[in-house]
Amino acid sequence: NKKYTIAVLPGDGIGTEVTPVAVEALRLAGSLEGIDFEFKEMLVGGAAYEATGVPFPEETLKASLESDAVYLGAVGITKKMPSSDHLPKHLRPEVGLMRIRRALGVYANLRPITVFPQLLEASSLKRSVTEEVDFMIIRELAGGLYYGKPRGFGINEKGEETGFCTEIYSSSEVDRVGRIAFDMAMERRGKVCSVDKATVLESSRLWRKRVTIMSEEYPEVDLSHMLVDTSAMELIRYPKQFDVLLTTNVFGDILSDVAAMITGGIGMLPSACIGGPGPQLFEPVHGSAPDIEGEDVANPLAAVLTAVMLLRYGLKEEAVAKRIENAIFDTLNEGFRTRDIPTPGAKIVGCKKMGEEILKSL
Amino acid sequence: NKKYTIAVLPGDGIGTEVTPVAVEALRLAGSLEGIDFEFKEMLVGGAAYEATGVPFPEETLKASLESDAVYLGAVGITKKMPSSDHLPKHLRPEVGLMRIRRALGVYANLRPITVFPQLLEASSLKRSVTEEVDFMIIRELAGGLYYGKPRGFGINEKGEETGFCTEIYSSSEVDRVGRIAFDMAMERRGKVCSVDKATVLESSRLWRKRVTIMSEEYPEVDLSHMLVDTSAMELIRYPKQFDVLLTTNVFGDILSDVAAMITGGIGMLPSACIGGPGPQLFEPVHGSAPDIEGEDVANPLAAVLTAVMLLRYGLKEEAVAKRIENAIFDTLNEGFRTRDIPTPGAKIVGCKKMGEEILKSL
Ligand SMILES: CC(C)[C@H](C(=O)O)[C@@H](O)C(=O)O
Ligand SMILES: CC(C)[C@H](C(=O)O)[C@@H](O)C(=O)O
Repeated sequence: NKKYTIAVLPGDGIGTEVTPVAVEALRLAGSLEGIDFEFKEMLVGGAAYEATGVPFPEETLKASLESDAVYLGAVGITKKMPSSDHLPKHLRPEVGLMRIRRALGVYANLRPITVFPQLLEASSLKRSVTEEVDFMIIRELAGGLYYGKPRGFGINEKGEETGFCTEIYSSSEVDRVGRIAFDMAMERRGKVCSVDKATVLESSRLWRKRVTIMSEEYPEVDLSHMLVDTSAMELIRYPKQFDVLLTTNVFGDILSDVAAMITGGIGMLPSACIGGPGPQLFEPVHGSAPDIEGEDVANPLAAVLTAVMLLRYGLKEEAVAKRIENAIFDTLNEGFRTRDIPTPGAKIVGCKKMGEEILKSL
Repeated sequence: NKKYTIAVLPGDGIGTEVTPVAVEALRLAGSLEGIDFEFKEMLVGGAAYEATGVPFPEETLKASLESDAVYLGAVGITKKMPSSDHLPKHLRPEVGLMRIRRALGVYANLRPITVFPQLLEASSLKRSVTEEVDFMIIRELAGGLYYGKPRGFGINEKGEETGFCTEIYSSSEVDRVGRIAFDMAMERRGKVCSVDKATVLESSRLWRKRVTIMSEEYPEVDLSHMLVDTSAMELIRYPKQFDVLLTTNVFGDILSDVAAMITGGIGMLPSACIGGPGPQLFEPVHGSAPDIEGEDVANPLAAVLTAVMLLRYGLKEEAVAKRIENAIFDTLNEGFRTRDIPTPGAKIVGCKKMGEEILKSL
């Protein structure tokens, strides 16, 4: 049997509820294809802070770097720690996530937006708008406004407090994530839409320039540019126009959550953080969701779809990926739904039960 | 008769088509209430650049400062100038808009999101989601990422090109726009939702701190904080939860376009830029829209609703404002629609004809 080691970081809130579902799906689907997984469960985020005093302990880093892929559940506030405002920045749960992304050197966050036909009625958007939507958001993940320096707090010439951050991109930062977008478009419908705010931001002007230069290497790919405000509307007005949507860290953070609503919500959205030299990172898009934590109502499908991405993009084990994908499909066909994706006539079940049904389908 | 001087800046693209409709509505409704308007038409944006070599000429500044209110149509690319990428930043059309906002000292952009019952079917969102939505987005307009310094282009230690901008807020910048939000909430349903990314951005942490401090002066107002990515989803999932949504310049730019989709699109959205010491600025949210420019199909309702805001917030002439509002309502009741807001059984008309129908209703 082939063997893989997966670092599993359940993290906070519903992360600890959905992760076991993904792990069991991986274990079972793997065994059916002659693959053994060794899962190393490690701490991250608020859970790590509580146990060790820091949100990203050394042991978590070490186990992650030694793994074949890293699976992360969620980090963020929880019922027990409903705010982290009182903590200095370097101890807050989110820092655990930002640090592991940095440590693995991943720089492209892939968020596929696809609509399950069974869930067409679960979206706020009309069926005519969401039907057949299928695109990939590629968010730059290692630079821009969320990491740029200088950043911090200061006092201005009037003696007032200030808070400041820097949005900065360099050519190579744009190029490496741009290449992932163009390569992906070549395997899809051949279109890249690059989203920026080049009319106002210098960082966006560099972004647009580099993406345009790169497009010359890909004559088969049709490149367009869209302003971020326009794209926020177009995602809702006519999402079928998109194939690969490439954008910056901060814009991608916002736009991928807009796009989530096409699919019936973040309970359905997986993501992959790729591009680093070593193991890649896989995480559902939803956060810790303290409002529903501990009630066994979280939707584990994002987590299981994240396991699919881990197999597909991390380990290149397409056969196992397909198995799990089919099991999700079957479970939805049988009418099982968590309460965030209600559709007429559905059987509403909890997180655990949904997981059991997926294992049954497998 | 009372007299007001209005600086009218039609600008670019469909700005030149919708502005006359708003001007005629103001003229007629004013005359019915014993008010005379003097309209001073001035150049801005690409139109100004073509005629004078700069996007914001001195005369436009002068006429604007001497007026009782400034009405702006749209600035941006057009069929004639389909890209401004070749121009240095200070000559691009958008700079005309950013300069006039600065020159007037306006710092709060008010974007009311209300749904006309006649247009419920025109949205991508389901009727059950959009019905009875009524909130106000208050976008900080004079600071943050779109104005912060340092900004520009550079070379990093690896010899690569970089582009960078600064997101910076000071206490007083947050306080002045915050006050507008809290005051507005007092006249509405008493809720402020402040949107930031305090988990990652120092500028957002200062923002959150100042808004929280200010809330102590308004014990009747219920303040909540929401992360920008979450808010992008919540605007689509359950927009009825919002009353006053207060946010930064860049987040407001994106979120107000998300919110636009609730109402049936930006063809319906007015905005007011207020807070300055002198005349205030009023502009529809849509841009120059080169794709439909010159075809007499633009929706003039955003422009006419902007005239309503000019009367209501700029001149405090509520009676005239109400007259125009009622005329819009009647015109929609008679079934007239532009093609961007089709509803079953509607009479689809062009921009001019829509304007004539509004004048008739007046
Ligand atoms: C928790 C936060 C740092 C993170 C981000 O914005 O990157 C999250 O919102 C996400 O989208 O994965
Ligand atoms: C043209 C541009 C500078 C402007 C902005 O972002 O402020 C526009 O997008 C708007 O929303 O009014």
